[in-house]
Amino acid sequence: MTKQLSPAVSICRDLIRCPSVTPAEAGALKVLEDLLKPAGFEVHRVVFSEEGTPDVENLFATIGSGGPHFVFAGHTDVVPAGDEAAWTHAPFEGTISDGMIHGRGTADMKGGVAAFAAAALAFVKAHPAGPQGRISFLITGDEEGPAVNGTAKLLQWAKDQGYTFDACIVGEPTNPEQLGDAIKVGRRGSLSGALQVRGTQGHVAYQHLADNPIPGMLKLLGALASIELDRGNERFLPSNLEITSVDVGNTAYNIIPAKVEARFNVRFNDTWSLDSLKAYLEALLKEAAPNGLDWTLEFKPDNSESFLTHDEDLIATLSAAVATVTGRTPELSTGGGTSDARFIKNYCPVVEFGLVGQTMHKVDEQVAVADLDQLSEIYLQFLKSYFIK
Amino acid sequence: MTKQLSPAVSICRDLIRCPSVTPAEAGALKVLEDLLKPAGFEVHRVVFSEEGTPDVENLFATIGSGGPHFVFAGHTDVVPAGDEAAWTHAPFEGTISDGMIHGRGTADMKGGVAAFAAAALAFVKAHPAGPQGRISFLITGDEEGPAVNGTAKLLQWAKDQGYTFDACIVGEPTNPEQLGDAIKVGRRGSLSGALQVRGTQGHVAYQHLADNPIPGMLKLLGALASIELDRGNERFLPSNLEITSVDVGNTAYNIIPAKVEARFNVRFNDTWSLDSLKAYLEALLKEAAPNGLDWTLEFKPDNSESFLTHDEDLIATLSAAVATVTGRTPELSTGGGTSDARFIKNYCPVVEFGLVGQTMHKVDEQVAVADLDQLSEIYLQFLKSYFIK
Ligand SMILES: [Zn+2]
Ligand SMILES: [Zn+2]
Repeated sequence: MTKQLSPAVSICRDLIRCPSVTPAEAGALKVLEDLLKPAGFEVHRVVFSEEGTPDVENLFATIGSGGPHFVFAGHTDVVPAGDEAAWTHAPFEGTISDGMIHGRGTADMKGGVAAFAAAALAFVKAHPAGPQGRISFLITGDEEGPAVNGTAKLLQWAKDQGYTFDACIVGEPTNPEQLGDAIKVGRRGSLSGALQVRGTQGHVAYQHLADNPIPGMLKLLGALASIELDRGNERFLPSNLEITSVDVGNTAYNIIPAKVEARFNVRFNDTWSLDSLKAYLEALLKEAAPNGLDWTLEFKPDNSESFLTHDEDLIATLSAAVATVTGRTPELSTGGGTSDARFIKNYCPVVEFGLVGQTMHKVDEQVAVADLDQLSEIYLQFLKSYFIK
Repeated sequence: MTKQLSPAVSICRDLIRCPSVTPAEAGALKVLEDLLKPAGFEVHRVVFSEEGTPDVENLFATIGSGGPHFVFAGHTDVVPAGDEAAWTHAPFEGTISDGMIHGRGTADMKGGVAAFAAAALAFVKAHPAGPQGRISFLITGDEEGPAVNGTAKLLQWAKDQGYTFDACIVGEPTNPEQLGDAIKVGRRGSLSGALQVRGTQGHVAYQHLADNPIPGMLKLLGALASIELDRGNERFLPSNLEITSVDVGNTAYNIIPAKVEARFNVRFNDTWSLDSLKAYLEALLKEAAPNGLDWTLEFKPDNSESFLTHDEDLIATLSAAVATVTGRTPELSTGGGTSDARFIKNYCPVVEFGLVGQTMHKVDEQVAVADLDQLSEIYLQFLKSYFIK
């Protein structure tokens, strides 16, 4: 006898069974479309293309009218399963065992999408005339990929259709250990840079005829390695710079190389902007560079500013929903990596809350069935407070 | 009308026409054998083999009896010609044009071998009863290759045959700009080492979960880069350390790598032995390593001690021959790279003198015909002084 699955778990399992490894849609958006359309949502499937990147399918679904306009953002694409034989349960089955639902994407973030879909359907069903305002889904298939044909373009598309947003929750797995641990209310920015120092190749026995670029690079990297950018603040961790690679590629012990390259990345808080940080690093390296050193610093194009959500009402409403359902007061965090929230924050206040992220991107990705149901309750509680208060 | 070639130039051209790119013999040793045997030399062709390296032909030729025993050491193998189309004259033709003889190996060092062969033949012809002592040729085909099946083994072979040597000249191109610039009376030693620092891979956004090995490596390399080993002495340049590579190989800006490697080489004078230098570097790095750093230092196997020839008679006799023929007083140098002299110095006093090395290993390798003839005169003058004084 099969136990009846809750809506959130059932939707999650349906999504898991679509092997939507980025950028494949694999039926996952169809699952949502088939749920939302009958419930009265207007559903748009939007494909974006750009030379050099795969075409990606996205979904925008909306119901209601007037304001406020709340949007839930998420993705149905997942990272590859890797060696499927290494999984205890097949990664695209959604097997439920010992209170856990298993599969690629359960945590990141088909579980979150399913929990919100179940909550939205319940909310709409309870308010047959529609919400006093608008509820939308902004779902991409390009979060785990290049993130070029996904959320960024879908936001612009929605704007072009005349939609404006008042608040957003991104359903990424924000909880380190337990549901209710943390809401993300911002993210550190990210700045990547590359250093190159050029010298003159030569034989080690005739070093006076050569010019070894490595000692000069050591001076530059020494300056980067000993940097203290700031000490953080009440909402942000300290900014941090990591040197991620140094490369010469010279296998001959008797040759002084002509060139050395290095790469670094900074995760920075709201003490800095991309511009102020670039200027600071340029000045620091100029100061550290020995006279006459032939060097260049190049910043990479895919950098992002830090951001912090200042909509205290949105934060309080979501925190209260989390506390009501879990009994726990979530930490307001800005740690961790970037997400599509970096695009959304240019359109409306955005916070992030989802499942427990421990197994995301790993073999045996899984979440607790109870968490999935609780998350759906939290989202429902949020919708009630947001629209009906 | 073809101008009559001198013996040195004629032999040089015959050798150049053998495309003896290391380890190929290509007839080059046969050219010598066919010259030396008719002149009364006992000629041995000796092949050495070792797993993992190519078999190599070598030649040992000897004439005379009793002491002293003088040996000329050289090689007939050459480095590849590279893009033959880039040469003004075909690299294996020995074209004579505008006073220069062109071809791969003219400078390094078929020219030197030819000059000595012509000198030895002239000397033997002038002393039909043979020298008061013994003249030998120690010629390898493995100087430009791994140097495993060449001079080192040929020396041992000669020792096993009962030969002992009193003095040696190696015919490498020792003159930076003009014939007569420099005699090499020793060489700096060479020590190669590799450093590895290990950390823990992780995402830059979660740097507290990772352990970046690069800052620790920067400390180690900083210590190596600021080293002053000594200031040299009257016969030697200062010892010098060059960091030749630093490698991570991480192309992802958002990943902290697990490992970084670096390589270095020291050219050191007689202030140091391999053992004392290794101990010094180990202590220096231990001092520089931050607490708890997971690092290793590994010295490479093909290192060599420095050496200095202390046979002032040999040096004076060769210097005088150079001065007599060229009118120039050669500098007594220990600069430059290693040569097979590093093996010979364990058997007898050794000095090096040959042609001008500017074009060695390059496209359009060439030497002046006049230099070739003068070098042959220098060698002949040396033999006269050495054996007849
Ligand atoms: Zn995600
Ligand atoms: Zn050579």
